[in-house]
Amino acid sequence: MIKNDLIIKALRGESTERTPVWMMRQAGRYLPDYRKLRDKYDFFTRVQTPELATEITLQPVNQIGVDAAILFSDILVVLQAMGLEVQLIENKGPVLPEPIRSKDDLTRVSVPDIEEMLGYVFDAIRLTKMELNNRVPLIGFAGAPWTLLCYMVEGKGSKTFDLVKTFCYTQPELAHRLLQMLTDTTIAYLKQQVKAGADVIQLFDSWGGLLSPDDFEIFSLRYMRQIIQALRNDVPSILFAKGAWGSIPEMVSTGAACIGLDWCIRPEIARKLAGTGITLQGNLDPARLLSPIPELKKEVTKMLNSFGPGSYIANLGHGILPHVPVDHAKAFIDTVKNHVYLKQEKQVLSSL
Amino acid sequence: MIKNDLIIKALRGESTERTPVWMMRQAGRYLPDYRKLRDKYDFFTRVQTPELATEITLQPVNQIGVDAAILFSDILVVLQAMGLEVQLIENKGPVLPEPIRSKDDLTRVSVPDIEEMLGYVFDAIRLTKMELNNRVPLIGFAGAPWTLLCYMVEGKGSKTFDLVKTFCYTQPELAHRLLQMLTDTTIAYLKQQVKAGADVIQLFDSWGGLLSPDDFEIFSLRYMRQIIQALRNDVPSILFAKGAWGSIPEMVSTGAACIGLDWCIRPEIARKLAGTGITLQGNLDPARLLSPIPELKKEVTKMLNSFGPGSYIANLGHGILPHVPVDHAKAFIDTVKNHVYLKQEKQVLSSL
Repeated sequence: MIKNDLIIKALRGESTERTPVWMMRQAGRYLPDYRKLRDKYDFFTRVQTPELATEITLQPVNQIGVDAAILFSDILVVLQAMGLEVQLIENKGPVLPEPIRSKDDLTRVSVPDIEEMLGYVFDAIRLTKMELNNRVPLIGFAGAPWTLLCYMVEGKGSKTFDLVKTFCYTQPELAHRLLQMLTDTTIAYLKQQVKAGADVIQLFDSWGGLLSPDDFEIFSLRYMRQIIQALRNDVPSILFAKGAWGSIPEMVSTGAACIGLDWCIRPEIARKLAGTGITLQGNLDPARLLSPIPELKKEVTKMLNSFGPGSYIANLGHGILPHVPVDHAKAFIDTVKNHVYLKQEKQVLSSL
Repeated sequence: MIKNDLIIKALRGESTERTPVWMMRQAGRYLPDYRKLRDKYDFFTRVQTPELATEITLQPVNQIGVDAAILFSDILVVLQAMGLEVQLIENKGPVLPEPIRSKDDLTRVSVPDIEEMLGYVFDAIRLTKMELNNRVPLIGFAGAPWTLLCYMVEGKGSKTFDLVKTFCYTQPELAHRLLQMLTDTTIAYLKQQVKAGADVIQLFDSWGGLLSPDDFEIFSLRYMRQIIQALRNDVPSILFAKGAWGSIPEMVSTGAACIGLDWCIRPEIARKLAGTGITLQGNLDPARLLSPIPELKKEVTKMLNSFGPGSYIANLGHGILPHVPVDHAKAFIDTVKNHVYLKQEKQVLSSL
């Protein structure tokens, strides 16, 4: 039994005594103890050493008081497992020196034996679960097939992602073959994460919002739907597709327990689009944590009142920025924890 | 009298015999004749030499058959006029070697004498109008104050724009002083463009969508509103704020004649949010021009049918990409020009 199960309850749509809260990228560079480990070990050493990944995962739980841990890892380990080299240069984005661009390139990737290739992730989950000792739930995660395809084809981040779009528009059969391989790998990967102890799964579609709503359905959502359906009887899933607000009703119908939102949508509009039968998560502009603390508290309070109580997990609208002061991050968490909804606001919500 | 005044009519909400069409960045790198001039003259020479700017402006009118010319220039000339150095390195973004970050930096910028500092723009407009000889209207433009502030503070493009956001959140008085200076300069600049002959004005808020809807109102929309109101009796304005779909009703209420849309919103939803009393412009994913032509035509036809006839200007959802083949650009324009709406679709629209 998890002692603080606020997030699990919120994901089930059950009422909670207060709004649960965590932060995307909460185990990361804004924490001085993380930076110490970063100075000693390179990125993939941190990811692939269960003791280090566990230590990093626990830092925000112990130091900031978030209501969930999220495994310290990276969405690109799946591409490594499938056979691709991924380099991660500190303070820069990831680079794949040999991206996939043609049919011949496909011989370089395959659906891997997950246990063999990503065993260190499951070891880290088991160790983290032991160390957490049921204090809070552990969130496992994976990148959406579309976002992984972006890196696979572009070989790095991009402003317009026209290489991967051209790939999809001119070689759709290849694109769909890769997307299906990514989907199959991700399902096996997440199933193993759950078996190792993950209590919740979040799917990150960082680049879903680059697609038109129709293309989002074709190249992203239909694969995320497969993943969420495959996990449906195991754990609740959170679906976060940055910028894909234009497909909120479609995301709701995947069967996800929760839709993550970025900061570019008003909570009231998100709730209208999503309906009342699903939990929402988000959506403070991560840059707002750079505001002076009194201002920051005002913004968080406004957000909480806009979402209203129930079926809601407070979070940022994207990952926490590296140079946020720790006391600002803590002010965010504490403002959520101490918030009291006015009765009036509850009535507003129930009249929706 | 402008011979092809389809766009003017569409902006007035009058019915047109067919849907008018142009492309953002239509005078640019995808055209071989543009690339020839680029190889001979650097960016600001092209912008500041009226004969070159005119030649470039006319290229897509003569070669692709668009229904409007848009002046070849750059939004950052306003920052130059205000006193800042702007470097533009080919194939890279703009760089401001000395960005504005503090109160002391403000002494380096001022509201300029527009005629003196940007006379070359008005010369280019007059020359272009002569060469156009009333074939199609000429669109003038400026960057939104918020987007200009982003460059002013960041000094270059950014992934998260946290420098400019931190600036706004921690030094709001300075930010608003700069935004007002940018607004005053832009109003004078656009008024002069109209005086020189611009028939329509488009405001580009490339980074408006990085702000939450509330911050968009505070740091962007209230300044764009001033600009649009100041031009209201002169020419119709098109307001394009990329990614700011969350504020469509608020953008409509600025008094703009038309709202430009990016490709991440379904036309039907945009129309619902905007109401029927305004013209919409957009919104094909620019990367879709990289599709094989038959596929491209299908996508354009789908877009046209989704918007339906009337109160609509076909365009891309952002600037045309540099490596789009010219015949693909032409296929986009021709598909719009040749489109015949089915009667059924007209009825659907009128029932909105």
